[in-house]
Amino acid sequence: MIPGSSPDDKIERACISFVKEYQEINGSFVQVFEKPPTPLEFLRECVHPNRPALIKDAFSHWPAKRLWTNEYLREKIGADTPVTVATTPNGYADAVTFDPKTQKEYFAMPYEQSMPFGRFLDILEGKEEDPRIHYISLQNDSLNTEYNVLASDVDADIAWCSEALGKKPDATNFWFGSEESVTSLHKDPYENCYAVIRGQKTFVLFPPAEYFCLHETLYPSAAYEPNDRGELELKPLEGDQKVPWIPVDPLYPNMERYPRFQHARPIEVTVNEGDMLYLPAFWFHHVLQKGEQGVIAVNSWFDCEYRNILYPSMTLFRELANNEE
Amino acid sequence: MIPGSSPDDKIERACISFVKEYQEINGSFVQVFEKPPTPLEFLRECVHPNRPALIKDAFSHWPAKRLWTNEYLREKIGADTPVTVATTPNGYADAVTFDPKTQKEYFAMPYEQSMPFGRFLDILEGKEEDPRIHYISLQNDSLNTEYNVLASDVDADIAWCSEALGKKPDATNFWFGSEESVTSLHKDPYENCYAVIRGQKTFVLFPPAEYFCLHETLYPSAAYEPNDRGELELKPLEGDQKVPWIPVDPLYPNMERYPRFQHARPIEVTVNEGDMLYLPAFWFHHVLQKGEQGVIAVNSWFDCEYRNILYPSMTLFRELANNEE
Repeated sequence: MIPGSSPDDKIERACISFVKEYQEINGSFVQVFEKPPTPLEFLRECVHPNRPALIKDAFSHWPAKRLWTNEYLREKIGADTPVTVATTPNGYADAVTFDPKTQKEYFAMPYEQSMPFGRFLDILEGKEEDPRIHYISLQNDSLNTEYNVLASDVDADIAWCSEALGKKPDATNFWFGSEESVTSLHKDPYENCYAVIRGQKTFVLFPPAEYFCLHETLYPSAAYEPNDRGELELKPLEGDQKVPWIPVDPLYPNMERYPRFQHARPIEVTVNEGDMLYLPAFWFHHVLQKGEQGVIAVNSWFDCEYRNILYPSMTLFRELANNEE
Repeated sequence: MIPGSSPDDKIERACISFVKEYQEINGSFVQVFEKPPTPLEFLRECVHPNRPALIKDAFSHWPAKRLWTNEYLREKIGADTPVTVATTPNGYADAVTFDPKTQKEYFAMPYEQSMPFGRFLDILEGKEEDPRIHYISLQNDSLNTEYNVLASDVDADIAWCSEALGKKPDATNFWFGSEESVTSLHKDPYENCYAVIRGQKTFVLFPPAEYFCLHETLYPSAAYEPNDRGELELKPLEGDQKVPWIPVDPLYPNMERYPRFQHARPIEVTVNEGDMLYLPAFWFHHVLQKGEQGVIAVNSWFDCEYRNILYPSMTLFRELANNEE
């Protein structure tokens, strides 16, 4: 075989030119709507093209927007009520993490801690010192389960989205955390309407077409657990089930290790208090947050369309990108 | 390299499992609507999933449905009016064709003949003998140009489709031919609403995901021209521009020559007089027609959505399927 034309090169070339063609057609921007779109407009301009949108003034009528101060939440949820908190030493829950003890990389999951909501708030407000990072980030329809007392402060539904998709949300989640929490690059098989109620979130987005640039890899999984001294340590999980995850940090990419990332075109979008981000199904996203007294968001996940070519394409991309064979 | 695991095998395996995953999700059927869908329903259930639909009772109010007898057309268009007719010896205009003279396969195009409309009708009705097959099949918005006198007999617009897509049709074409005409397997970059006004058409459909099964190949092109004895012969076109076309006849597939076709799942749908087929963008279609006094159809092409992953995927599939490297 002549150098420079091996079939793996053929795959590499085909995938890179596919990425470039997608980028040429779409550019690297997010549509902005000054008010919520109509269902038809949303379906046609956002969901069908599978392109993100920033929607202003999408939920100014939600009581949550004015009600959700820390005082209100302490009162409403109850200071003594136990809540589930994702706890990490570094703010990275669900992320590829180098473990100094075993000298290996793991897909690291947080220590899922139950603590009184009042204590969570005290740590957030600096009234109690704790070097660990705490994030309320359960994604099991938490607004309607653990935070059910808050549910009536937001619409049960994003009307224009539900009407467009012909279905109710599959889950609505309550997110509450500090600037130290970072969500590492990943994707979800859901249409996602993400409302920032307090503070600001910055999303770094990549379309599914750029999968090839992101070097998804299988990692053994581990979860943080407190050791005898109460410090969080990674503990490998039993069994051999590996987890596919994106190792690249889009803000500090290691180009030598992840050379295909040079072909990606990150789309950065800041979602301010009062804004809603439409994050299309299968879009990769990395999230940072800002806000001194805590950042609060509510997102609704809607089941996505599995019938068109996008979903099976993700499997095809994965098989092609895997060069280990 | 170990046998059975060359990287071209890797591409083959990845593409075939992609095809199978698509088929498992979608099955091999066409949705049927007993009446026209709403714009939202059409966008959500047909266009966004990129799945075909058969729509009953979609144009019962078009005057064309009752008016378009041969007599009416002869009168309205005018027997002496010259029209453009695609003429072939075998009914296959735009098809991969073996040329006995040069012993080569070509992408064969029809002889584009101008003839009085009355003569076209006479041949169709058997009043004039002609061994050649004639088909009125110009696709240049012919209903609004060459057949402009008929335009007011149909709606200028498919209202629910235009509203769903947010645009008017790019072209509306008038089709008139006999049972001998066959449209060979190909795709168009348009959302297509295809109304059968007289007779019956049978479409054999393949989703874009099955591209890999169809053995698209580049062919030199040739067009039919009458020789000295008035018989149509293929004449290779000047220049070296090759045309990509599908060589498989889905009704009589040569599995030895085109082995990947075994993985395709043809979807056959009969469109009766009064029915409309929604043929999604990039779907491959092979078309047969039935109707003794001629078969008439009108189709509207709407520009498709280029932003989502489907369009660049077609280029990726082409590059991957090309094993000639």
